[in-house]
Amino acid sequence: MKKSEKWNLPEDRYFDPDPAQRQIAMELYNSVVHLPIISPHGHVDPRLFADENGSFGTPADLLIIPDHYISRMLYSQGIPLENLGIPRRDGGSVERDHRKVWQIFADHFYLFRGTPTGVWLADELNSVFGIEEKLNGRNAQSIFDQIEAKLKLPEFRPRALFKRFNIEIMCTTDAATDPLIHHLVIKKSGWDGNIRPTFRPDAVVNLLAFDWSHHINALSQLSGITITSYQTFIHALEERRAFFKSMGAVATDHASETAYTLQLSSSEAEAIFQQALHGKANLEDTKRFNAHMIMEFARMSIDDGLVMQLHVGSIRDHNSLLYDRFGPNMGADIPSQSEFTQNLRPLLNKYGVDSRFRLILFSLDESTYSRELAPLAGHYPAVILGPPWWFHDSINGMRRYFDRVMETAGLHNTAGFNDDTRAFPSIPARHDLWRRVSADWIAGLVVRGIVDLGDAHEMILDMAYRLAKRAYHIPE
Amino acid sequence: MKKSEKWNLPEDRYFDPDPAQRQIAMELYNSVVHLPIISPHGHVDPRLFADENGSFGTPADLLIIPDHYISRMLYSQGIPLENLGIPRRDGGSVERDHRKVWQIFADHFYLFRGTPTGVWLADELNSVFGIEEKLNGRNAQSIFDQIEAKLKLPEFRPRALFKRFNIEIMCTTDAATDPLIHHLVIKKSGWDGNIRPTFRPDAVVNLLAFDWSHHINALSQLSGITITSYQTFIHALEERRAFFKSMGAVATDHASETAYTLQLSSSEAEAIFQQALHGKANLEDTKRFNAHMIMEFARMSIDDGLVMQLHVGSIRDHNSLLYDRFGPNMGADIPSQSEFTQNLRPLLNKYGVDSRFRLILFSLDESTYSRELAPLAGHYPAVILGPPWWFHDSINGMRRYFDRVMETAGLHNTAGFNDDTRAFPSIPARHDLWRRVSADWIAGLVVRGIVDLGDAHEMILDMAYRLAKRAYHIPE
Amino acid sequence: MKKSEKWNLPEDRYFDPDPAQRQIAMELYNSVVHLPIISPHGHVDPRLFADENGSFGTPADLLIIPDHYISRMLYSQGIPLENLGIPRRDGGSVERDHRKVWQIFADHFYLFRGTPTGVWLADELNSVFGIEEKLNGRNAQSIFDQIEAKLKLPEFRPRALFKRFNIEIMCTTDAATDPLIHHLVIKKSGWDGNIRPTFRPDAVVNLLAFDWSHHINALSQLSGITITSYQTFIHALEERRAFFKSMGAVATDHASETAYTLQLSSSEAEAIFQQALHGKANLEDTKRFNAHMIMEFARMSIDDGLVMQLHVGSIRDHNSLLYDRFGPNMGADIPSQSEFTQNLRPLLNKYGVDSRFRLILFSLDESTYSRELAPLAGHYPAVILGPPWWFHDSINGMRRYFDRVMETAGLHNTAGFNDDTRAFPSIPARHDLWRRVSADWIAGLVVRGIVDLGDAHEMILDMAYRLAKRAYHIPE
Repeated sequence: MKKSEKWNLPEDRYFDPDPAQRQIAMELYNSVVHLPIISPHGHVDPRLFADENGSFGTPADLLIIPDHYISRMLYSQGIPLENLGIPRRDGGSVERDHRKVWQIFADHFYLFRGTPTGVWLADELNSVFGIEEKLNGRNAQSIFDQIEAKLKLPEFRPRALFKRFNIEIMCTTDAATDPLIHHLVIKKSGWDGNIRPTFRPDAVVNLLAFDWSHHINALSQLSGITITSYQTFIHALEERRAFFKSMGAVATDHASETAYTLQLSSSEAEAIFQQALHGKANLEDTKRFNAHMIMEFARMSIDDGLVMQLHVGSIRDHNSLLYDRFGPNMGADIPSQSEFTQNLRPLLNKYGVDSRFRLILFSLDESTYSRELAPLAGHYPAVILGPPWWFHDSINGMRRYFDRVMETAGLHNTAGFNDDTRAFPSIPARHDLWRRVSADWIAGLVVRGIVDLGDAHEMILDMAYRLAKRAYHIPE
Repeated sequence: MKKSEKWNLPEDRYFDPDPAQRQIAMELYNSVVHLPIISPHGHVDPRLFADENGSFGTPADLLIIPDHYISRMLYSQGIPLENLGIPRRDGGSVERDHRKVWQIFADHFYLFRGTPTGVWLADELNSVFGIEEKLNGRNAQSIFDQIEAKLKLPEFRPRALFKRFNIEIMCTTDAATDPLIHHLVIKKSGWDGNIRPTFRPDAVVNLLAFDWSHHINALSQLSGITITSYQTFIHALEERRAFFKSMGAVATDHASETAYTLQLSSSEAEAIFQQALHGKANLEDTKRFNAHMIMEFARMSIDDGLVMQLHVGSIRDHNSLLYDRFGPNMGADIPSQSEFTQNLRPLLNKYGVDSRFRLILFSLDESTYSRELAPLAGHYPAVILGPPWWFHDSINGMRRYFDRVMETAGLHNTAGFNDDTRAFPSIPARHDLWRRVSADWIAGLVVRGIVDLGDAHEMILDMAYRLAKRAYHIPE
Repeated sequence: MKKSEKWNLPEDRYFDPDPAQRQIAMELYNSVVHLPIISPHGHVDPRLFADENGSFGTPADLLIIPDHYISRMLYSQGIPLENLGIPRRDGGSVERDHRKVWQIFADHFYLFRGTPTGVWLADELNSVFGIEEKLNGRNAQSIFDQIEAKLKLPEFRPRALFKRFNIEIMCTTDAATDPLIHHLVIKKSGWDGNIRPTFRPDAVVNLLAFDWSHHINALSQLSGITITSYQTFIHALEERRAFFKSMGAVATDHASETAYTLQLSSSEAEAIFQQALHGKANLEDTKRFNAHMIMEFARMSIDDGLVMQLHVGSIRDHNSLLYDRFGPNMGADIPSQSEFTQNLRPLLNKYGVDSRFRLILFSLDESTYSRELAPLAGHYPAVILGPPWWFHDSINGMRRYFDRVMETAGLHNTAGFNDDTRAFPSIPARHDLWRRVSADWIAGLVVRGIVDLGDAHEMILDMAYRLAKRAYHIPE
């Protein structure tokens, strides 16, 4: 069982075994396989593309150290993050030999059987790097050699891969206080890769964060508006949005534990904000202020036309030991129950019918798909549903989403696909997976006589390309 | 892609593509396809059948204007309801040209791809009206002509279609204060269509509704009992139930945001009721009173034998702008989380084992199916589960219901099918869909060796016909 | 339809109808079908094995009276438990003629169509007792005869069946105050059946239980530590754990309505405990104490190495009429919503990364699978997920679990299978079902190109045998 095996990537992978469905799925998939990638939401570091000679580093730098999908699984089986070369906040010692890191990963590659990370990695190693054997403990170093060699070639620099991946547009996610230096450098470089920022103001909204005043100072400085009040805070945010828009941004992004929305009066908002400026924010006020700011960002979206994304339901940094040692985004964010119907009512009653407003909702609580989200999207003109997010961005996660969302919301109230990834070289694998699972889903409708083949071809075009562009108002 | 296409309604539609399963599904479906329709819960207007020469009006009157499944989807894509000819409360101007309304619908028919409305409409237009081309913007007016012509024929009058549809019994849903004039007219007309009322007292129970006192006055008048107290209120309700029963009713229906039940003492109930009579109802008391009235209606069911239906979890009129302009039932009711285990405990501890009591539960929160509803139905003698409701009355909704409910509840603790529709001509399509999806589900059990073919034939008879009759105590 | 039918147990039952998937499922299943059974959690009465000549009694004693899966379904259709021979607490009259009990069961065997009880029974009657006709009202007495005759044979004594079933290890569930007499007798008898106790302290933790002081007295007596304080209570529990461990226990088991955890200070814990000793426990304190004791039992697990199982979400004895008449475990426990992410945070922040700690979580709320449990298990080293529990221990329940858990948690963060049954002779049927459904799930991954056949063979070995042993630290 442990001898070297050829990598198994059948042409018709992820399709239903029924021959009739599989054949139609293949036909649909082939009709979109060469379309460019639309990546309207993700977390790739724009720095990679600022230097035309930029490099991804070692295979471990590329594939393991920045990818918390991988490190969380190894950690769950008792492997310390230190052994994976992940830097500690306190500068404490971690593994520096990336060949050792790679060996650990290869020794435990069996943990990823049947996981989305497993199928992304197989596709990525095989299609991007030409690896032809399934990774295991024995071939680990040889495969490290092969990837390392590839990464030194010019055609494996970030900009070259961006072109090879046929990415029409890629949006990054950037703090409201990010000066967008790398985006500016890319713009000025004359390189024609279409990379745009997204405005994410969470850090300046969360009044209770220990470094809130630091972020507010940065916001003052970058906006040129000294923040001494709620009003100046709002103006500074509007100023930054205008700057992001001038840099090509099409959207904003907002993460919130809950979907709670609430319209405060100006005087209430001002009072809470003043308390915070004086270091006296409390939990209840902070929740109300956050709920109010979601309303306020919707108002700004109507004014400036940026599409509003709302990601709900992640309890960040659940493992405080890990957070203290390694910081955020280490695979320790855990979803919790979400509620949209009551929480979004104030927002939707105020702005949900405004034709200038677009709200894209993301949920980690799949029980809300058929119960709340699809009915909301199938009614309010402003609301559309983002694709399955994070833990649900998998073959089964997509299938559950199609199953529970599409009948009630209708395809045209959804937003196509987001890869939402930090792992740039996994982008083609992720979009390919979406296109395959979409093609298989639509083929299932055809063989069941629910839609005809003509409709199916329109639907796969929507899923693979058109819906994402329409959802984010991406210019042709 | 946009040329005219023959309507695609394969004989074996909605069945699994596996040839073995499909063949058994076809055999099971064919064994029940000619059975009469049992429609024990729905919202068809009985007025249609009061006049033997009654008509459905134009194709838009028939298919678009009254059907909020259709108008919500168009509205979600930014089409104002005014453009669909839906009357405004303030009498404001709306589109009067039904050909224009129809054209909008046809232009946007692609929105219904893969939705239950899409498959119902395809079946209805094809099977009831003989339309042979898929509807689109170019053939819209020609198809309008065809339907319009059909609707003028005697065989397309409501009573004629009722017979053609082979409806054995159809129950409407009627306010406690409805004088049942149309039911009386039907009864006296000598026409033998079996149409029965259902007693729905929600409007007189909701103490906080702005027109509550109006409904209470109507209840006094119709019952002949002047309501001055909780006791007279109860007597008036009992009187109305007796009248409904004399008109053929077999059931009552109750809608509630939650399943909360609570037994108040007579003095508490009286005190709250008196507050309401004096215009001083408050939210907390209203919730407790509603919870108490569910208990009280159960008590009445035991006394008079009417089956009790409880529909839980819809937040009505979520979009207040729409409600103000167009009123209720415009597609803006959105489900929310539900809880049954704790909420129904008082009711079930008091009446759940009483052999005279039958409670049929409906939920919009599918997470309750396997967690709460199936275990409750699989234990309490009084409880059975209604079919998937509203947004879940679809191919996938039914499959999820079978998946999550049947193993734990057992088929015999379920209530067969309700079409629950306002759209009379969609009734055959909806029952046909249920029968097909049921046949496919049972065929799936056969090919997996879970039940044998003998059992399968019994089960499809149950699903298609017998369970609904048994659940509602419908006389032979 | 009602004539005698041969029992239908196809060799490839429960597999997908697709021929390619079915063939691989069969290959995988055949590779594990002869492996011994690991039964690390269940409720079989050890008394059965204490006497080498022990017997199961009549067919009704064996199959109906102790099995609340069966009695709840009959009860839900209006059959009084008295008619099934289930003893009343008050000694009131119940059916004593087990042939009549059996006849009722057989007359209603159709109720179990498509239920897990139905498939377990079919397998059990056919494979264990050699019954070749499907049970019905007409052959009821003849089948009773056949089973009765078998039960008199030496090879149908409990110890003989234990060997025939090829059970490598079976763990029972035993109160903290159980003297483990039967386990002692088994041990001393020289019989080599590997039956081990499991420490379950719920009764001594629940301060509000009417008989709590009775249990505390028993705990004092058995531990030899007079419980006069929280500290002595803890010592007594540690003493009992040591005794259970000396008797072979590998695990503890804890049932809780919620997953709420909380670290009390010693003084708070002592204060609450003293209140309870004085008969003054209140609900709020009891909840906090229970939350604290989950933390405390985790601490003990780290000290003594016993694996900790936590079963969350069952509302016990929902039907008080039934409870009063027949006591607990009568099929009237109903699940309710559960929350793990917030509730377990204190526990996991304290012990979740400790390599000496193992926590196996069980949930009755399937909406927590993908939302909370799989992300927690896929992150915290201490956490693994138990198999689908109770109502979800069925073909569809297993499929939903595989669908929603495996991609995010990974196979290696799960615990294989528990049969969790009181019904000893159903154990082979339950494990066989798990192995078949597992094989079919993995075969589905193979035919979709998600894993290759080499990985698939490793995975089925994990599912059928290795994961359970590893999860419970079962010695080779």
